[in-house]
Amino acid sequence: MTRPSAYLDHAATTPMLPEAIEAMTEQLKQVGNASSLHAAGRRARRVVEESRETIADALGARPSEVVFTSGGTEADNLAIKGLYWARRPRRRVLISSVEHHAALDPTHWLADSQGAEVELLEVDELGRVHPDTLRAAVERDPDGVAMVSVMWANNEVGTVQPVHVLAAIAHDHGIPFHTDAVQAVGQLPVSFAGSGVDALTLTGHKVGGPMGVGALLLARGLTPVSVQHGGGQERDVRSGTLDAPAIAGLAAAVSAAVKEQQALARRLTSLRDELIQRVRQAVPGVVLNGDPEDRLPGNAHFSFPGCEGDALLMLLDAKGVECSTGSACSAGVSQPSHVLLAMGAQEAAARGSLRFTLGHTSTRDDVDRLIEVLPAAVERARRAGLS
Amino acid sequence: MTRPSAYLDHAATTPMLPEAIEAMTEQLKQVGNASSLHAAGRRARRVVEESRETIADALGARPSEVVFTSGGTEADNLAIKGLYWARRPRRRVLISSVEHHAALDPTHWLADSQGAEVELLEVDELGRVHPDTLRAAVERDPDGVAMVSVMWANNEVGTVQPVHVLAAIAHDHGIPFHTDAVQAVGQLPVSFAGSGVDALTLTGHKVGGPMGVGALLLARGLTPVSVQHGGGQERDVRSGTLDAPAIAGLAAAVSAAVKEQQALARRLTSLRDELIQRVRQAVPGVVLNGDPEDRLPGNAHFSFPGCEGDALLMLLDAKGVECSTGSACSAGVSQPSHVLLAMGAQEAAARGSLRFTLGHTSTRDDVDRLIEVLPAAVERARRAGLS
Repeated sequence: MTRPSAYLDHAATTPMLPEAIEAMTEQLKQVGNASSLHAAGRRARRVVEESRETIADALGARPSEVVFTSGGTEADNLAIKGLYWARRPRRRVLISSVEHHAALDPTHWLADSQGAEVELLEVDELGRVHPDTLRAAVERDPDGVAMVSVMWANNEVGTVQPVHVLAAIAHDHGIPFHTDAVQAVGQLPVSFAGSGVDALTLTGHKVGGPMGVGALLLARGLTPVSVQHGGGQERDVRSGTLDAPAIAGLAAAVSAAVKEQQALARRLTSLRDELIQRVRQAVPGVVLNGDPEDRLPGNAHFSFPGCEGDALLMLLDAKGVECSTGSACSAGVSQPSHVLLAMGAQEAAARGSLRFTLGHTSTRDDVDRLIEVLPAAVERARRAGLS
Repeated sequence: MTRPSAYLDHAATTPMLPEAIEAMTEQLKQVGNASSLHAAGRRARRVVEESRETIADALGARPSEVVFTSGGTEADNLAIKGLYWARRPRRRVLISSVEHHAALDPTHWLADSQGAEVELLEVDELGRVHPDTLRAAVERDPDGVAMVSVMWANNEVGTVQPVHVLAAIAHDHGIPFHTDAVQAVGQLPVSFAGSGVDALTLTGHKVGGPMGVGALLLARGLTPVSVQHGGGQERDVRSGTLDAPAIAGLAAAVSAAVKEQQALARRLTSLRDELIQRVRQAVPGVVLNGDPEDRLPGNAHFSFPGCEGDALLMLLDAKGVECSTGSACSAGVSQPSHVLLAMGAQEAAARGSLRFTLGHTSTRDDVDRLIEVLPAAVERARRAGLS
């Protein structure tokens, strides 16, 4: 008899909430382009605008500050490239060294092909950007800074950044501040107005909504250059037919996730702490990465000395435990995580790391299952590593 | 008793096919990021790769030539900006004057901010790009041309372009040729290999698939610069989490639509010709725009002398007939269609035009309903125009 898998990879994607599935499938049966003037179009437009209000309400923003996108990657691209182009001739882009590739890669492209001067902000051994680091970088030439981007919480090691403090430093010099909050929404209290950030990325499939949809919250008065040109939707900031079904699903998910955030965070923090404690008992010598206190409720990230993360991942997968190395993996070739390297980890430790992330469907059974199979898997991975 | 509306705006968006809804909703209940290495991720990846094969098969392409995007607008942006950047220092972009804004606007942005020299290819009074027009434009400086873009069939007036002839002219000089085939797929026979084009845009919600997903078919050996940078999905051409549910819905729709294309085209052509004939009888003086022969099966586009298109649209909508002016309408301010103006129409004629488009759910009832209410609506719109 096969048991269901223990899914410990909610940071990669989390199951859709029933209310999000329902809101979305209801719209899939309708017809109407939100840009059409007739009744079917107006109906679709109403769905989009009500969803916009729901999301704004849930996240402390104004409806007019919500720009729908196809997901987090597009929202990051729009914020970073769009604000860089909008604020030319300023060339400096300050970005943390532990960002997701969806933020890092557009930045590097701006440097390679659009004349940007990119400065990676260092982090400490827990993955935190210290406010003094940002202040010193800004003050070297504040007038030359196009924008600053630091994520709300790290997708690999779970470390939460002091974004409101960092945003205030940027604002002291009139510089717009973007944060990728893809992992934060639904796990941490997120208020757009309260945080003081100017641009905030969120995505559906990390909060129980659908894939293929996200948003950039964008403070009034800030107009990035479009990355996707066309019909002029979203006040000409982001063109493309508004995906009313996915937007309805996103709104249902964000609304439900924000409503449940406190209770979920409490439950996951407790479950996560139990997972950490039991992993430490089961595998002596394991190292917890990231901030032990100020981290995402659902995140546990370890280095397993003497193991290759990919090998360990596959061994666990064979036993029905699904997790992630937390590092970018292109074409099957594993590379050490740029996040761990930026935190000062040695390459071997960076290679031998695994991320376990919990979400709304996680239970103690998942942790039990992990602990049941982890010691033998680690032992096999170590032996494989030695051979 | 209110009757259901007659939906005559399938070119704006068409209802999802039942098989596409089913394929998509089935996936919404699953979890898994197609980039994850564990079983749930591999399952999602399998859905994506099987969908890729289905789409490639249906459209005469190789699976490796399918790049998934968030829709037609993104695919057009990727083809045009991406090929322009990839072929620098060439600066010339040749594009027809009747393109959708999703192709025109990225091109204009390249001119405004990236040093492109844009040349709009003239069309004749039926909206056709003559091969000689392209040939002459190319031959003025072939080595300076970055790319050519001419749509397969026009979204407003329905005129079909001789894309295979135009593509061959570009190829004589080693220049890549892109076509926006958003309106063509499902209505016309479309073979990527057979057409000889190098890049072809399609989108889900015009063929009975979901919104928020589309694809760029991209000939082997052609690598546009990314427009959306990040995790390196789609062989680094288009980053962003692969939206497995929408991609499954897209594949189901494309497969069904291509299978039914001949039968649908026959049925719609006959229904469309009936619509044209009866509109002409009902409203003397009406003018059919676009190519009378070589046009999309579902497209009928008229100028109503003495009317404002928007007023007529709203009058028809009030009587339960949903159609479009076919012109871009920003913030409620109607502008004359750039397509009609390019075809040599006077501004008044351009303003007084309406597009009726048929699709898979269209029946003779829809045409009956239109003919029933059209004459009175035209009369009212004319009186309003005179007052």
